[in-house]
Amino acid sequence: MTPADFRLSARARSMKASEIRELLKLVGRPSMISFAGGIPDPGLFNVALFQDAWREAFSGPSIAREALQYSTTEGYPPLRQWLADHMTSLGVPAEADNILITSGSQQGLDLIGKLLLDKGSAVATHRPTYLGALQAFSAFEPTFSSIDAPQPVGDAAARLLYLVPDFANPTGLTMSRAARRAALEQAQILNAVIVEDAAYTALRYDGETVPPIAALDAATAGSIEGTRTLYCGTFSKTLSPGLRVGWISGPKALIRKLAMLKQGADLHTASFNQMVMHQVAMAGFDTQVERIRAVYRTRRDAMLAALDRHAPLGVRWKRPEGGMFIWLELPEHIDAANLLKQAIRRDIAFVPGGAFFPDGSGRNTLRLSFSLSDEAQIEVGIFKLCELIGQQGLARAVSV
Amino acid sequence: MTPADFRLSARARSMKASEIRELLKLVGRPSMISFAGGIPDPGLFNVALFQDAWREAFSGPSIAREALQYSTTEGYPPLRQWLADHMTSLGVPAEADNILITSGSQQGLDLIGKLLLDKGSAVATHRPTYLGALQAFSAFEPTFSSIDAPQPVGDAAARLLYLVPDFANPTGLTMSRAARRAALEQAQILNAVIVEDAAYTALRYDGETVPPIAALDAATAGSIEGTRTLYCGTFSKTLSPGLRVGWISGPKALIRKLAMLKQGADLHTASFNQMVMHQVAMAGFDTQVERIRAVYRTRRDAMLAALDRHAPLGVRWKRPEGGMFIWLELPEHIDAANLLKQAIRRDIAFVPGGAFFPDGSGRNTLRLSFSLSDEAQIEVGIFKLCELIGQQGLARAVSV
Repeated sequence: MTPADFRLSARARSMKASEIRELLKLVGRPSMISFAGGIPDPGLFNVALFQDAWREAFSGPSIAREALQYSTTEGYPPLRQWLADHMTSLGVPAEADNILITSGSQQGLDLIGKLLLDKGSAVATHRPTYLGALQAFSAFEPTFSSIDAPQPVGDAAARLLYLVPDFANPTGLTMSRAARRAALEQAQILNAVIVEDAAYTALRYDGETVPPIAALDAATAGSIEGTRTLYCGTFSKTLSPGLRVGWISGPKALIRKLAMLKQGADLHTASFNQMVMHQVAMAGFDTQVERIRAVYRTRRDAMLAALDRHAPLGVRWKRPEGGMFIWLELPEHIDAANLLKQAIRRDIAFVPGGAFFPDGSGRNTLRLSFSLSDEAQIEVGIFKLCELIGQQGLARAVSV
Repeated sequence: MTPADFRLSARARSMKASEIRELLKLVGRPSMISFAGGIPDPGLFNVALFQDAWREAFSGPSIAREALQYSTTEGYPPLRQWLADHMTSLGVPAEADNILITSGSQQGLDLIGKLLLDKGSAVATHRPTYLGALQAFSAFEPTFSSIDAPQPVGDAAARLLYLVPDFANPTGLTMSRAARRAALEQAQILNAVIVEDAAYTALRYDGETVPPIAALDAATAGSIEGTRTLYCGTFSKTLSPGLRVGWISGPKALIRKLAMLKQGADLHTASFNQMVMHQVAMAGFDTQVERIRAVYRTRRDAMLAALDRHAPLGVRWKRPEGGMFIWLELPEHIDAANLLKQAIRRDIAFVPGGAFFPDGSGRNTLRLSFSLSDEAQIEVGIFKLCELIGQQGLARAVSV
């Protein structure tokens, strides 16, 4: 039998295999210089801290009852409290009951889609935006609109504004305080919920910190309970993605609803992983963030410098203040998906930008990640990539 | 703001807080004898085996790149291979690509709902059935029908037959080989997919093993690729629920689709947990299953004997051949939800049966779990519970 022989849901029938998925499989090839995934460098993980946490967690008397047993859907209480304090330090005064632990922030997006979206509901996003958010929300068959386009009001208004305000995936851009305020006002007018995807927020390399939208919202509302922002956080870009621990912070009334949806989705996030992540976060979150910031800053600078040196005319990019990505706009006649096929033959990988646009535009764009490669690899990789772009018929660079 | 102030999805508006959730919170009270949750006894977990597996996993050179890093959505290859062999041993000849690792079998149900259900699609289940399946599928707004009622054919036919063939939650009943064949034939006529929830399958205490529906399907079709059964397995009832590792076994074409849906839902199941579970399963799955079977068998027998001794007239139950549950039918005038309130005051917990019926019937039924209590607690708990039932106006027991 083939899937066509089964009666699948409309969402399953419309799914296409993701280009990114196929790309990520190439990362394992040793000769490959990968600028593809938004993947932390495993060489930077603080393995010793995890070893200590594991040793502690499984030498305690309660290992069987705590680490190996079912636990509550909302999450491990000490981790919820640590995250409440963390959110408070970011300007979002939160209590443990404002936090739902999720299986990575990807699950946060899935649960929020379940909470808010009926078939045909509108979701407003930046264009381009995080592919995984489009995937998560698509399961609930919404329509997508651009947050920069005029928004209808009333029933047709977007229920959900999805934003990656800091060092966005894929563009690397950061929303100014004024842009965050404007988004919040727009959400109030539309009676929409803002989903603030903060996956990269800890990774600022320079410039001034801009408060989370959730903080601006709480300051205006007087408390987190009056807000309309669901903040999705994760340890994946700082401590470890493999443990799959993220969180949603928001008003208790919505967190309770999200917990009920999570119960149906996976009962709870792995107990042991939450205990370990709590230990590691307590022992070394700030130190780890400082450490990886220093390394990624150097790599960002190396990639920007290499682009300055090698990029042919007509290739444009902006300097990101943090995160993992530099976004390239190529001359319109270049198709980045075709370019990728040639690049892979030269052992270079990146993500063609078209995947990040819900409407299939952006064919002449691509995303470069600088997180996985050292400075020498970045120099070689960018040189080879730019040479290849130049061979498509160009000559000198413009940085905008 | 309250949730009523937001524009929530229809599914979120119709959600009600689960009685079971509230009940499970009581399990922690030390004086409580809980017959409520379908929870393994943590005293039976093989802690030493997990300690060995953890030590091994995090002393290897690849800990950072494997255990702490992102991994593939489909799952850790050695675990997929172990499970393929396990399925083959159950009569379902499978390869690694027939297996998708899920975050517990609960996630399997969520993903299958996403794969198959549009709003208004029909789902046929036994009545009563596993509450968590009703929760998972409800997110996709199907209609529920009884598998025992006449089924419409064509577009209105159920897309999904949900079955717990072995020692079902909540009834403890096992489907005969003939009943399994009949369900398979029905699915073929309806062009439906069978979801075989095998959460309790390893926990058989006596009687003859009946082949999984997936095995009967594969035998008829000649290979797993021709089947229409998605088998949902889990380590939660045998090795550990806290690590959240389950699997779906099925034809590759559907497994590939499910992997795409899983990518949008949580990217992948925690890498480290899969490595540990693979180690533990290799080192001691069979031994662990034998060990817990012996203990749970004793507890089942103790509960049956206590019911025989103490149950008042008009209370009916059937002897389960495995699993964790005995299902009681009380005289029609007794409301089990009211009974629970009285029982909790006497430190006894169980789950009122109404929660397991999609149509709200079954008010005079309840589910007893014998997995968490020792024989002395079972004797005391059943005595007190039966006394309480007797006080609702009854006299002697009938076992059917």
